[in-house]
Amino acid sequence: MEVDFINITIVGLGLIGGSIAKSLSKNKKYKIYAIDTNKNTIEKAYKDMVIHNNVVEETNLLEKSDVTIICLYPNDAIEFIKKNMKNFKSNSIITDTCGLKTKILSSIKNIIRRDITFIGGHPMAGRELNGYDNSYAKLFDGSNYILVNTEGSESRTHELIEIISDIGNINIVISKSSNHDNMVAYTSHLPHILACALSKSPYNYKAISNFSGGSFKDSIRVGDINSMLWTDLILDNKENLIDSIEMFEENLRGIKSIIKNGNRNELMDTLNESKKNVKLIKGERM
Amino acid sequence: MEVDFINITIVGLGLIGGSIAKSLSKNKKYKIYAIDTNKNTIEKAYKDMVIHNNVVEETNLLEKSDVTIICLYPNDAIEFIKKNMKNFKSNSIITDTCGLKTKILSSIKNIIRRDITFIGGHPMAGRELNGYDNSYAKLFDGSNYILVNTEGSESRTHELIEIISDIGNINIVISKSSNHDNMVAYTSHLPHILACALSKSPYNYKAISNFSGGSFKDSIRVGDINSMLWTDLILDNKENLIDSIEMFEENLRGIKSIIKNGNRNELMDTLNESKKNVKLIKGERM
Repeated sequence: MEVDFINITIVGLGLIGGSIAKSLSKNKKYKIYAIDTNKNTIEKAYKDMVIHNNVVEETNLLEKSDVTIICLYPNDAIEFIKKNMKNFKSNSIITDTCGLKTKILSSIKNIIRRDITFIGGHPMAGRELNGYDNSYAKLFDGSNYILVNTEGSESRTHELIEIISDIGNINIVISKSSNHDNMVAYTSHLPHILACALSKSPYNYKAISNFSGGSFKDSIRVGDINSMLWTDLILDNKENLIDSIEMFEENLRGIKSIIKNGNRNELMDTLNESKKNVKLIKGERM
Repeated sequence: MEVDFINITIVGLGLIGGSIAKSLSKNKKYKIYAIDTNKNTIEKAYKDMVIHNNVVEETNLLEKSDVTIICLYPNDAIEFIKKNMKNFKSNSIITDTCGLKTKILSSIKNIIRRDITFIGGHPMAGRELNGYDNSYAKLFDGSNYILVNTEGSESRTHELIEIISDIGNINIVISKSSNHDNMVAYTSHLPHILACALSKSPYNYKAISNFSGGSFKDSIRVGDINSMLWTDLILDNKENLIDSIEMFEENLRGIKSIIKNGNRNELMDTLNESKKNVKLIKGERM
C-alpha cells in the first residue's frame, strides 16, 4: 500500500467495531472511518476523535479504504459485502469479525471480485455489555485473534496481520474455517450453553446469590447472553456444538459415576487429572 | 467480653486463616494469635505483625482466647476440637471455616462443653493458590460468609457477627446446616465438577488455548482443584451433589434437544430465560 497512511473503514461501530476503532485510531499509520446505521454513534465517535468521518457516505468511504473491517452480525455482514461488492477499492482487503467462519467464507467465495482479498477474522474477546459506549481500546489485550484464509488470500495475510497486531497485545492464530468452527464449538459455544443450563434451578435468586462464591459467578457469567446473536451462532454451528455437548455429557456422567461409587482414590485421580489439564491449557508448569 | 481487647486464636494459617488474621490484625480491638504445624509460617506471620505469638503454646493460647477460629480441613478441624476440648476458655466461642456444615456440627454436638458455644462458619471466598504466602487481607471483600447455629448458640451469634463483619466488606448469611450443604452442592460443588468435566477433551492443550476466550477460561478456572480437600467435600456431600448434577444434566439435555430440533424461536426463548435468570441472580434490573 503505497500511501503515507492506511485507510481503514470499520462497518458497525458496536462493542467490537468500536474497540477496534479506538485502538487503531491511536496509531498515526491509520486513518479510521466508520459506517453505522446509527447517526448518533458516528457523530459521537467523530467527536471522540476515534474516526475521521462525521457522516456516512458509504460508497465514498469504501472506494478509498485499503482495508474494510466488517463488524456486523453474520447475516448482515454477508448482506453488506454483497450489496457493496462494486464499491470496494481495487486491491483492498476485506475482513470480518463473525464468530463462525465456514458460512461466511462459503458465501463470500462465490461473489468476491477477483481484485479484492477476503480474509476471515474472529477476535475472541467480548463482554456482557454491547454497543459503542461499552467499547474500549484495550478490549483485545491478552486475547486470541483467529484469521482464516480463503483460496488465494494467503499471500496477503501478512499485511492484515501487521494491522491486526496493532489492536493490542494479542495472539494471532491462523486456522482453517472447519477447524475454527469445530474448536469454538468446544471453547466458546459449549461454555455458553453450560452457563445457561446452570442458571436454571428450583432455588430462588436471593438464596442462590447468598450462597454463591467466585466459582458460581464465573460459571454463569456468559449465561447473560445476547440471544439474537447466539441463536444464529448456535444454529449455524449445530453439528459441532451437539458433538461438544455430548462429549461433555459423557465426561460428566463419568465423574458422577465415580462420585456415586464413592471410591476415594478414583475420585482423587480424576480431580488430579483435571488439575493437570487446566494447568496445561493455561500453559502453566506442573 | 469485659476486656479491653478480644483475644482471637486462628488455628491453621493457610489461605483462609492467613487472610482472616491479616484482616482482623489491622483492627486494634483484636489481639490475634495463631496455631500452625509449620513453625516457619508462625514466625513469618509474627514478623509480618499479623499475629502476637512467635511460638505455638497451644494450651496457653486456647485458654486465653475469647474466640477460636479453626481454619483446618474438615476432619482435622473435628480432631483439633476433640483433642483440645478441655483447653478452650470458659464462655468462649469456637467457629470453623469448613465448606460443609452438617458433618462438623453433628460431630461437635456430642462433645462440646456446656460453657462453650460452637457456631459453624463458611467464608465463601478462595483462590487457586494455597497457603499463608497467598493469603491477603482483602480476600473476603464482596463475598458471602455463612454462619450456622448449633442448638443454643443463637443468643451468641451477634457477638460473632460483630467480629466477622470486621474481616471485610462481606454479606453475612445465617443458615441451617442442611440448607447450607444443599445450596453449596449447587452453587459451589457443581461448578467445580463442571469445570473438571470441561477440562477433558480430545484436543491438544495448545489448540484449546489458541481458541479460548474469556468464557472458556472462566469456565475451567476452578478445575485447577485442590484434590485432597475436594475429594472429602464431594464425598461428604455426595447425595446433594448427585441431585444437583442430575438437575443440571436435565437442563443440558433440554437445551440440547432444542438445538437439535433447530427451532429458532424456542432457542431464543431459552437464551432469553437464561439471560433473565443470570440478571436476577446478580441482582441486576432487567
